[in-house]
Amino acid sequence: MIPPACHWQTGVANAHQRLRDRAPLVHCLTNQVTMNFVANTLLAAGASPAMTDHPDEAGELAGAADALLINLGTPGEASLTAMHRAALAAHAAGTPWVLDPVGAAALPLRRDVALTLRAQRPAVIRGNASEILALEDGETRGRGVDTRHRSEAGLAAAASLLDHADGIAISGEVDHLATTDDSGQPQRLRIAGGSAWQPRVTGTGCALGALIAAYLAVAESVMEAMLAAHLHVAAAAEQAERTAAGPGSFAVAWLDALDQVAPGSFTEERVTRLC
Amino acid sequence: MIPPACHWQTGVANAHQRLRDRAPLVHCLTNQVTMNFVANTLLAAGASPAMTDHPDEAGELAGAADALLINLGTPGEASLTAMHRAALAAHAAGTPWVLDPVGAAALPLRRDVALTLRAQRPAVIRGNASEILALEDGETRGRGVDTRHRSEAGLAAAASLLDHADGIAISGEVDHLATTDDSGQPQRLRIAGGSAWQPRVTGTGCALGALIAAYLAVAESVMEAMLAAHLHVAAAAEQAERTAAGPGSFAVAWLDALDQVAPGSFTEERVTRLC
Amino acid sequence: MIPPACHWQTGVANAHQRLRDRAPLVHCLTNQVTMNFVANTLLAAGASPAMTDHPDEAGELAGAADALLINLGTPGEASLTAMHRAALAAHAAGTPWVLDPVGAAALPLRRDVALTLRAQRPAVIRGNASEILALEDGETRGRGVDTRHRSEAGLAAAASLLDHADGIAISGEVDHLATTDDSGQPQRLRIAGGSAWQPRVTGTGCALGALIAAYLAVAESVMEAMLAAHLHVAAAAEQAERTAAGPGSFAVAWLDALDQVAPGSFTEERVTRLC
Repeated sequence: MIPPACHWQTGVANAHQRLRDRAPLVHCLTNQVTMNFVANTLLAAGASPAMTDHPDEAGELAGAADALLINLGTPGEASLTAMHRAALAAHAAGTPWVLDPVGAAALPLRRDVALTLRAQRPAVIRGNASEILALEDGETRGRGVDTRHRSEAGLAAAASLLDHADGIAISGEVDHLATTDDSGQPQRLRIAGGSAWQPRVTGTGCALGALIAAYLAVAESVMEAMLAAHLHVAAAAEQAERTAAGPGSFAVAWLDALDQVAPGSFTEERVTRLC
Repeated sequence: MIPPACHWQTGVANAHQRLRDRAPLVHCLTNQVTMNFVANTLLAAGASPAMTDHPDEAGELAGAADALLINLGTPGEASLTAMHRAALAAHAAGTPWVLDPVGAAALPLRRDVALTLRAQRPAVIRGNASEILALEDGETRGRGVDTRHRSEAGLAAAASLLDHADGIAISGEVDHLATTDDSGQPQRLRIAGGSAWQPRVTGTGCALGALIAAYLAVAESVMEAMLAAHLHVAAAAEQAERTAAGPGSFAVAWLDALDQVAPGSFTEERVTRLC
Repeated sequence: MIPPACHWQTGVANAHQRLRDRAPLVHCLTNQVTMNFVANTLLAAGASPAMTDHPDEAGELAGAADALLINLGTPGEASLTAMHRAALAAHAAGTPWVLDPVGAAALPLRRDVALTLRAQRPAVIRGNASEILALEDGETRGRGVDTRHRSEAGLAAAASLLDHADGIAISGEVDHLATTDDSGQPQRLRIAGGSAWQPRVTGTGCALGALIAAYLAVAESVMEAMLAAHLHVAAAAEQAERTAAGPGSFAVAWLDALDQVAPGSFTEERVTRLC
C-alpha cells in the first residue's frame, strides 16, 4: 500500500540508496536512437544496464535480470522477437518490467505489438498521453512520436489500462502516475518540475522508462518506483538546467546530475496527491 | 528562381524562423553510428525527428512527414527495404527528400543502392566530392567514408547529376551548392566557414544532410534550403569552436549553438556566387 | 621482441606519432550501444573509423582496412555473418584484428561465436577477467557484461589463450597485458592509472579495444600496440577526471583529452614488468 503523498519521502530516499548500493541489472530492449543515452543514464543513476536484443539471448537475460525495459522506438523484426521472448521470460520469472510504447499513437504496427506485449503483465506502462490513449482504446492518432494531448488527458485512459498493468506513468509538461491500492481505490499523483530542455534532447523519455525499471528492482511498491524515478529525473533536470547553455550541455549535465543528486534530496513540493 | 547571392539573406532568415515556428517532422532513415547525433541536431535546430526504419512503417511515415532523409552509412537489409519504400512514398506524396550516399565512393553495394534510389527524384543529393563523383559516373574509388577529392572536383559531376535531383550539395573544407534556375542556367554557390573540428566528430556531415531535409520543408526553393542548412551549420560550428577544447566539447557546443544562433545572424560573407 | 618495461617509452611515443600522421582506417564491427562513442574515440585519437556491418561489405572492407575490431556487445544475425566474413578476410589479408568478446562470460551464444572467431587468429583478445576466463575454458559464469573477477585472475587463462592470439589484454581496476617473446618466454605487464569514472560511462572498454586495433596498424609489436592504447587511454582518463563533474562531463573530457595528450607524454610510472 502506498503512503500518503506527504509521507513518501523516506521510502523514495531509501529506494534511491538501495539503487546505488545494489546496482540492479536492468535489461533494456530499446531503440537504436537513444540506447547509448539510456545506458549512460542507468550507469549515472547507479544501475547496471544490459542491452542485448538477440532473440536467442533476450529470454535468458530477462529472466536473470533484476528488471526489464521494453521500448518500441525503432522495432526491427529480430528485436520484436526478442521483446516477446523477454516479456514471457520476465512474466514467468516474476521480473518486473516496463512497457514504453513509443510511437504507438501514430503507427499501427507498434500499437499492435504493444497490445500483444501487455498480455505479459508489465508492472508499468509509461508514455505520453497520446500513447496511453492509443493503448487504452486501440485507436491511432497524430503522427511521429510527440504527443498531441496534455498529460491530464491520459488519466481516464490510465484508469482503464490498470487492468493490464500495476502502474501507469504519463509524461508531459506535468507528469501523472496512477495505481490502485490494495482495497481497489485509485491512487493518483501529479509531479511537477523538470526542465523545458528535456523534450529538446532525444531519449529523455526513454531514459525515464529505464529508470522506472531500475527502481522497480529496489522499491517497496510500484508507485514508489514510479515516483522515485520521476523525482530523480526532475531533480537532476532542474540541476542540469542551472548550468546548461543549450540542449547539448543540458544532456551532459543531466548525466552528471543523475549521479550527484543525493538520496533524500527529492523534495515533496513536486508532488500533489489527486485522490 | 533563386535570388543573387547578395540578396539571399532575408530568405534564409525567414526559412530559419519558419523552421523554429513549425518544427517540421523529418523522417530519417539513417545510419546506426550517428542517428542519436542526427536526432539531437534536428531537435537543437528546431525540427522534430522520427527515426523508424521498419519496412512496414517507413512508407507510411515518409508520406506523412514534412521531409525525408535517406543516409546510406550502415545499410542493413531491412533498412534498405525501408529506404526504397520511403523514397517511393515520398515521391508519390511530393515529400521533399535528401539522399546522402555515405561510402558510395568506396563500396559498390551502396553505390548501386544510391543509383536505384535516385530514380525517385531526391530534392537534394549531398555528399563529399568522391561520393558525388561515384554517383555521377558509377565508378568506385578510395576506401572508407572519407573523400579523396576536393569539393571543387565534384562540381562538374554535380552539373550532370542535376538530371537526377533539383540540387547538389558537396561538402569539404569549402562547400559547393549547385542547382539549375528556371531558365535552365546553372546556379552555383561556394560556402566558406565552419570549423576544422567538424571532420573530427562523427556525424557532422550526416547532421547537415538532415538539416537540409528540415529546411526543404520550410524554404521557398531548393537552393534556399541548402544554403540555409549550410549557413546554419557553419555559424553554429564557428560559435562552437570558440569554446571547444577538443572534439568532445565541440560536439556538445555544436548542439548548443544550433539552438542559439538567431534567425538573420547568418552573414553573407560566407557565400560566393560562382555563376 | 619487446623492449624491457623501462625502455618502451620511445616506441610508444613513436607509435602515437604515427597514429596521428597516418590516420589508419579501422574497420569496426561493434555493438549498437557504443558505436558512436567508439567512432568518436578513434577520431579523437587520430584514426579513421569505418563501421559498416553489412555482410556483403564487411569482408571487402576488412581486407582493405589497416586494422579490424570485432566486438560482440549486441550481436545480430546479419552482423554475426559480417563478423565471420571480416575475420576471414582479415586473416587472409594479414590485417591485424582485435576480438572483444563482450558478455561472453554470461551468454553462451556469444561465447560460442568468440570461440569460432578466434580460429581466424586475432592479434589481440581483449576483455575483462571473466570474459578471458570464459574464452579459455569455455565455461559461462556471472551475468550481464561486468566482470566477477579481478584482472589478475585472468592472467593464468591468458597464458593458455596465447595459443589463439598474439596478445591478451585484461581490463579491470588494474590492467594486465600478456604476450610471448620470440624465444617463447612470457611477457607480462601491469598497467595502473585511469579513472574511476571509466566503468560509469558505457563504451570505455569498447573504445579501448578499438584503440588497440588502431595501434596495431602503426606499432612495431603487439605488446607495443596494447601498451600504447592502454597508456593513451589511462593518460586521457586521468586528464579528463581533473575537470569532470560526473560521468557526462567525463565522457566529453575523455574525447578532448584523447586528442590533447601529446606523443611522449605517457610516463613509465604506470607500467610494471611482471616477468
